[in-house]
Amino acid sequence: QIISGVYDGYTTGAPINIFFVNENVRSKDYSLFRKMPRPGHSDFVAEHKYSGYNDIRGGGHFSGRLTLGLVAAGALAKKVIEEISVEAKLVEAGGIDVSNYTAEQMEIYMGRIQSEGDSIGGVIKVEAKNMPVGLGDPFFGSVESRIAHMMFSVPALKGIEFGVGFEGSKMRGSEHNDRLINKDGKTATNNNGGVNGGISNGNNLEFKVAIKPTSSIFIPQETYNFEENRLEDLQIKGRHDSCIARRAVVVVENAAAIVLADLLLTARGINNKLFK
Amino acid sequence: QIISGVYDGYTTGAPINIFFVNENVRSKDYSLFRKMPRPGHSDFVAEHKYSGYNDIRGGGHFSGRLTLGLVAAGALAKKVIEEISVEAKLVEAGGIDVSNYTAEQMEIYMGRIQSEGDSIGGVIKVEAKNMPVGLGDPFFGSVESRIAHMMFSVPALKGIEFGVGFEGSKMRGSEHNDRLINKDGKTATNNNGGVNGGISNGNNLEFKVAIKPTSSIFIPQETYNFEENRLEDLQIKGRHDSCIARRAVVVVENAAAIVLADLLLTARGINNKLFK
Amino acid sequence: QIISGVYDGYTTGAPINIFFVNENVRSKDYSLFRKMPRPGHSDFVAEHKYSGYNDIRGGGHFSGRLTLGLVAAGALAKKVIEEISVEAKLVEAGGIDVSNYTAEQMEIYMGRIQSEGDSIGGVIKVEAKNMPVGLGDPFFGSVESRIAHMMFSVPALKGIEFGVGFEGSKMRGSEHNDRLINKDGKTATNNNGGVNGGISNGNNLEFKVAIKPTSSIFIPQETYNFEENRLEDLQIKGRHDSCIARRAVVVVENAAAIVLADLLLTARGINNKLFK
Amino acid sequence: QIISGVYDGYTTGAPINIFFVNENVRSKDYSLFRKMPRPGHSDFVAEHKYSGYNDIRGGGHFSGRLTLGLVAAGALAKKVIEEISVEAKLVEAGGIDVSNYTAEQMEIYMGRIQSEGDSIGGVIKVEAKNMPVGLGDPFFGSVESRIAHMMFSVPALKGIEFGVGFEGSKMRGSEHNDRLINKDGKTATNNNGGVNGGISNGNNLEFKVAIKPTSSIFIPQETYNFEENRLEDLQIKGRHDSCIARRAVVVVENAAAIVLADLLLTARGINNKLFK
Repeated sequence: QIISGVYDGYTTGAPINIFFVNENVRSKDYSLFRKMPRPGHSDFVAEHKYSGYNDIRGGGHFSGRLTLGLVAAGALAKKVIEEISVEAKLVEAGGIDVSNYTAEQMEIYMGRIQSEGDSIGGVIKVEAKNMPVGLGDPFFGSVESRIAHMMFSVPALKGIEFGVGFEGSKMRGSEHNDRLINKDGKTATNNNGGVNGGISNGNNLEFKVAIKPTSSIFIPQETYNFEENRLEDLQIKGRHDSCIARRAVVVVENAAAIVLADLLLTARGINNKLFK
Repeated sequence: QIISGVYDGYTTGAPINIFFVNENVRSKDYSLFRKMPRPGHSDFVAEHKYSGYNDIRGGGHFSGRLTLGLVAAGALAKKVIEEISVEAKLVEAGGIDVSNYTAEQMEIYMGRIQSEGDSIGGVIKVEAKNMPVGLGDPFFGSVESRIAHMMFSVPALKGIEFGVGFEGSKMRGSEHNDRLINKDGKTATNNNGGVNGGISNGNNLEFKVAIKPTSSIFIPQETYNFEENRLEDLQIKGRHDSCIARRAVVVVENAAAIVLADLLLTARGINNKLFK
Repeated sequence: QIISGVYDGYTTGAPINIFFVNENVRSKDYSLFRKMPRPGHSDFVAEHKYSGYNDIRGGGHFSGRLTLGLVAAGALAKKVIEEISVEAKLVEAGGIDVSNYTAEQMEIYMGRIQSEGDSIGGVIKVEAKNMPVGLGDPFFGSVESRIAHMMFSVPALKGIEFGVGFEGSKMRGSEHNDRLINKDGKTATNNNGGVNGGISNGNNLEFKVAIKPTSSIFIPQETYNFEENRLEDLQIKGRHDSCIARRAVVVVENAAAIVLADLLLTARGINNKLFK
Repeated sequence: QIISGVYDGYTTGAPINIFFVNENVRSKDYSLFRKMPRPGHSDFVAEHKYSGYNDIRGGGHFSGRLTLGLVAAGALAKKVIEEISVEAKLVEAGGIDVSNYTAEQMEIYMGRIQSEGDSIGGVIKVEAKNMPVGLGDPFFGSVESRIAHMMFSVPALKGIEFGVGFEGSKMRGSEHNDRLINKDGKTATNNNGGVNGGISNGNNLEFKVAIKPTSSIFIPQETYNFEENRLEDLQIKGRHDSCIARRAVVVVENAAAIVLADLLLTARGINNKLFK
């Protein structure tokens, strides 16, 4: 439900407010997690930072549900970046290359993890094609800084690398350096992921992000009971993805689009009409 | 040379301006790189973005020399964060674990790379001890977002991961989840690198960064000659580190201190005296 | 209707989203103002800036109705600033001192303007008592810069002065200088409005803002008809305040509270609990 | 002395650092003002905020000398805004209209104030011609918000009004509303100072600022002696302008240019070359 900023199918220039009603809520008691914080979760830090007033239902402020906002904003951002196409893909799940998995193979894989009451993480690859040369700035406004800043807003995301990233740190310079092969700046390889000196070089923007395994698992886990001041086993119930990385794909893709829109508007200007 | 902001050994509250004179400059002709951009360098994007007016001498705006500012600011930041100690260490160079290398072993290793006219990258590990619980915010102001934003301001840095990062994406949830073991939030493992939900959890802040191999190498490399519109071999001369990752250690450590100071001042307030 | 950020009567630390439904809407045709922009209104600039897609109904993005958000945020901010009390008052309307007007006198005055189909402006005085010493910074973060930035977000506001302001520019220094009379920094006069060098001095923060007369009046006014490219008389209908300054009082008061909360949180810190 | 960012007469895209050496410094003892803060000055707040470590020499961080940076930045900004010409003028000094004063008349006037050991304030009018339509945004990014934010960074500035400002609050709507008279949005009057709904309307941007009388005067003034905890007369010595408003003219003009450059770059984009 779009509350503001759109009229007759066009944005009006006013802030856009979109309202989503989550009707898929199951009543469940989360109060247990106040005294027994879930391992790998934000329960402990939230309880501490907000002095016990944090809304612990469904993960509250920290819930993956809130990434819906990033997806909605990204949908708009994609209209702004027009010629740039950005796409994210799950390339690894639980350490296995799933790039070419069919939906069916994926379900079988997930079912197996689910049945073990455990969870897995994954790696998502993002590629933006048709990039202009010159977006971003050296140092604090680098394309990498801005993309990374946004990416680490996505819950459960614990790493990011541009181009060959960590693997590249093992290469020789003679191997890593991307040779320019034409006057548009096209390079023979793209080990730098499309960015040099913080500025887009016209080749595809490429980066990968690491998503940790879902924290909520059904296997009992020991944690600290803050009421009784002792260690105790915790049994988590309810619905939980066995691989949150699958859900993160659309979030990461749209979050990238938001940053690209921002970079593009900075470079091209918001009011194209001015002085024409 | 401290220009402003310090008087009688104390900061005055005014902006601090420190002036460094680089006397170790050798006259050299960089103009070649305007028409023949060095592979892996910012020459091409700078020429494009600044329409040929960029200062190409010594890398200009993109030079690693400019990280001196980060180091100077970090030295001040370390005084602000007091009880938090932050330390960076080169743990990998050219894909080899150098954690326990002596200075002598390192020199021999570097000499070998240098003699081949090539370069290597590396991985730096940063650890901040004595972290308070509660720094940072969920989503856009996460500790990871802020640290990563700053880190990608460091030239040649192409990846960052918190805790076990990419390796963690291959783990099971039952293995990755950090169990709480006491009332201060101490965990048995630190796979999350000291951050949950974007907020520091009181355990050590731990992250690694990937530094690509130095772009300037002495082995001839093919690149595009923009004046003559054809491919041509380029021979780079002058002084160049065979492993810029070694130089980046102090930069990364101080850059981290800057972010921690910022987070701490936001949490604790700038004027502690107020209302006392 | 509070959508998020509050639970069991307490803020949770999550962003607070409050949703207001305006049921007092009368269907009216605003499309006339696209071709014949109302004098003194934003019709012309909005049409130009948003290329004809701006939502012109009820003033759209520029409507005084949108100040409701400032008032709601200010209500929360007042809880943050606790000991500081901030109060706004209409001191002048149409050039007449109305400081001591009763509600009845005010209604009679307004009725007269209304019956003439015209409108008046006014001056609002804001006073914040119990200010701490030390809020704000010299230059770009001055208390005056921050308050003024916020105030000029209020539609129809065209001037601001701190302390004796413009009147003070006619004084001698010997008359304008506020003499310190005790060790808390209390001054005999408050011509500086509680701010020196951009920093609060512990005396009351005092400023005045000028609100222009309501632009929508019932007297016919000449304007440019963009469809027919000629001057033409425009007759505005509907409901309109004859003195929008009266409505602005609560907006200005709450907008000031927002800035004070921001200054106070910067000074004192967001997480008071840290390290205690 | 330009330290960085300019090469061969052109800006390089790197940050521009300009270094000014003030050789016109007379040794003088300012330590008196730590215990006896000058009325109307920042001495008291600085001592409090910076816990006695502020640099009190020559006003330190609060000195009007520091506006030199605004003037230097404004000189560059004027090159960015090209077609927009911005000009500031002292229109009132000590409550007297000096718009048409000759330099000689001005000197005589100032000499008289100086001989009395007192000081006066003034009003500066700023006018920017050749403004495009569409700069700025409604609410928090309004042209007025941005200009005012910058202006209150100028020391001694205590008020700002756009167009007829405070005088306008005494007008009727029928008198204040600016009638559009052609298709470019030109208005018969400019009571709104060239801004409607926070957005530039293509007419001249016009605003006035109030400068308070110089705080440093030679007439003895009573203040609080913080060492001896009693009221005491203070005699200020040294060089002081009898009308700091005269010096502020160039500062205000250049500070306005900085904001206009910022607005223009936001609207037009930083990289005009992109996609062309």
